[in-house]
Amino acid sequence: MGISLIGVEGMPLVGAGDDIAYLIISALNEGGEDLLDGDIIVIAETIVSKAEGNIISLEEIKPSPEALDIAERTGKDPSLVEAILGESSEIIRVGHDFIVSETRHGFVCANAGIDESNVDDGLATPLPRDPDGSAEKILRTLQEATGRELAVIISDTQGRPFREGAVGVAVGVAGLSPIWDRKGERDLYGRSLETTRVAVADELAAAASLVMGQADEGVPAVIIRGYPWGHLRSDGGVKPLLRPRELDVFRG
Amino acid sequence: MGISLIGVEGMPLVGAGDDIAYLIISALNEGGEDLLDGDIIVIAETIVSKAEGNIISLEEIKPSPEALDIAERTGKDPSLVEAILGESSEIIRVGHDFIVSETRHGFVCANAGIDESNVDDGLATPLPRDPDGSAEKILRTLQEATGRELAVIISDTQGRPFREGAVGVAVGVAGLSPIWDRKGERDLYGRSLETTRVAVADELAAAASLVMGQADEGVPAVIIRGYPWGHLRSDGGVKPLLRPRELDVFRG
Repeated sequence: MGISLIGVEGMPLVGAGDDIAYLIISALNEGGEDLLDGDIIVIAETIVSKAEGNIISLEEIKPSPEALDIAERTGKDPSLVEAILGESSEIIRVGHDFIVSETRHGFVCANAGIDESNVDDGLATPLPRDPDGSAEKILRTLQEATGRELAVIISDTQGRPFREGAVGVAVGVAGLSPIWDRKGERDLYGRSLETTRVAVADELAAAASLVMGQADEGVPAVIIRGYPWGHLRSDGGVKPLLRPRELDVFRG
Repeated sequence: MGISLIGVEGMPLVGAGDDIAYLIISALNEGGEDLLDGDIIVIAETIVSKAEGNIISLEEIKPSPEALDIAERTGKDPSLVEAILGESSEIIRVGHDFIVSETRHGFVCANAGIDESNVDDGLATPLPRDPDGSAEKILRTLQEATGRELAVIISDTQGRPFREGAVGVAVGVAGLSPIWDRKGERDLYGRSLETTRVAVADELAAAASLVMGQADEGVPAVIIRGYPWGHLRSDGGVKPLLRPRELDVFRG
């Protein structure tokens, strides 16, 4: 089995009101590339938030006393801390230069996923308000425009406990299940599988991240071609990737 | 930029004493495939441990009182728990059906990375004793046999806090740095990058995992072709991926 990761080159800088699906199709067409049945399109969350006009102006934020306190402890800009608090349902850990919280969506990540890269100075992009909804909308437009059966993943780059460095993860999913549950399957020796739940959407997002880069490459969308996901069709969104609080031994 | 993930098909079941590099080259040749300059070869840790004869016979293990206690709390086989304790330098959390520990190598993961899949009943494979050394040895043999400049990653599939499902991660690295440190680089707007440290070896392992599967596919090695890593040459191994204990807020 072979899989291809194809960067969508030549996309313009995205602004509020832009149609991401249209920009992807235009860029692909200009590059002589088409979408095929089974393609998975991974899109960086930053351009989705920007297209949705979901941008925070840090200058307009008035930090609360709690934000001022956390800013003092972390050395972060108080307005950014206030924005992080606004995006969070629970603060989980405050480190020497970061804040780990649960976002309104249920993601546990640093700085509530708010990104200061790839926007103008004084601005920041939070995660899309409804990443599954955004993925669903882009998927529908792409499928209507091409007649292909596709899936869409909206990805972010996030750090994690215990291991250094950030990796691509899925924050929104449309068309496929983010988890492949292999319970009942057997290994090469006929034994029950030990690892039965594979986070395929995160693996797909990590793979796409290799092509996207994070800096001035300007490749905010990647086509993953050749990954068989016919058994993973789903419209359940990203939620199965989020561990319920009561099952997580690292929350307490 | 495009990246190809190519499964090494047709590899035989691996036994103690087998030469992994030779098995990979033979399988590639039979499939009419060659290694090219810049290829990264990702290899599942299970076949490395098996080739090194690093297999645990659970029947021969006598569980300690501590193992019996943890077995009681987790419902796990006491001999397996004793094996996990033997592979661990510190137990970090005991959950309702899992044990998170730091392994002798410094990895924080479930069940000390001991795997009961893809070996005969009553046996289990721990992580390779020295995964960087194993990767280095395989890399040297592959490079001598092909004359190509290559890199090798030994991968495992591991769960993580906060997110459901397991993903491919790197446990051994030879030839390239597992972390891409982008400090000082600029984004599309000329701002300093926010995410400066990317765990590329983990992203490469996650990408390879999409091709490997975990069950009866029998694809324990994957070639990653087209990922530019000339700026990441290193013989420092996997250590930069491991967060120092004192910097991890989720250890306490």
